[in-house]
Amino acid sequence: MSFKLHSRLQLDSIEIGRFTLSQLLLINDSQYPWLVLVPERNNITEIYQLSEQDQIQLQRESCILAKTLAEAFKADKMNIAAIGNMVPQLHIHHIVRYKNDVAWPAPVWGKFDAIPYTELQFNKIKKMLLTTLKENLKSSV
Amino acid sequence: MSFKLHSRLQLDSIEIGRFTLSQLLLINDSQYPWLVLVPERNNITEIYQLSEQDQIQLQRESCILAKTLAEAFKADKMNIAAIGNMVPQLHIHHIVRYKNDVAWPAPVWGKFDAIPYTELQFNKIKKMLLTTLKENLKSSV
Repeated sequence: MSFKLHSRLQLDSIEIGRFTLSQLLLINDSQYPWLVLVPERNNITEIYQLSEQDQIQLQRESCILAKTLAEAFKADKMNIAAIGNMVPQLHIHHIVRYKNDVAWPAPVWGKFDAIPYTELQFNKIKKMLLTTLKENLKSSV
Repeated sequence: MSFKLHSRLQLDSIEIGRFTLSQLLLINDSQYPWLVLVPERNNITEIYQLSEQDQIQLQRESCILAKTLAEAFKADKMNIAAIGNMVPQLHIHHIVRYKNDVAWPAPVWGKFDAIPYTELQFNKIKKMLLTTLKENLKSSV
């Protein structure tokens, strides 16, 4: 069975590329650099349901992504989370946080409505992501 | 340099035991079964700052804990997160969520003030944790 991204994730995000295990999505909210990893495995809602090999690969991809984002965007803190109360398909948030962002120090979920990127903003962040992640992505969109 | 738990985590939680890498803490909030893993490493604020070996060990401990909690407490969903906006010392939340808990479907942080366990409630949940985790904990308190 081929992998299909949950419709809500499709609506809220833009695909940037793929790691070995996971799709890399950018949440279309210009208030925070907010990326999501979605392991391309069907019927998985929790990290522990992945095979041990996939768990390790996910940790590897998550750490590469978090370190790259923290450095490229000069984050004050990374917020990394598997919540999934609304969208059961396993997806792991990676959010760049600043001490002066609109939601700080609260977590971002449910705080403010998304403010979509303008085309100019989107092109800029996409270029930055592809440049900094290019050696780690298997493919890009 | 020996490891020292952040004072805020000491205040908010009760130590349950230790895995190979991490301390296992119970947050003193009876509204949700809420456990925290704290890798016993100094000066670490992000998972990617751990050695690769520690990253894998943390993933292992996190998956054991999440699976055990999900099964023992019949969770509707596990919420797993490294936030750390208030307490920089790396700590990973593992929260058992139910579709009828007070905060659902929102994340729990900043939602409701903690309601501490009574002694009876605490003894019951501690016993349950130690029983279900006994083969995976290196030591218990």
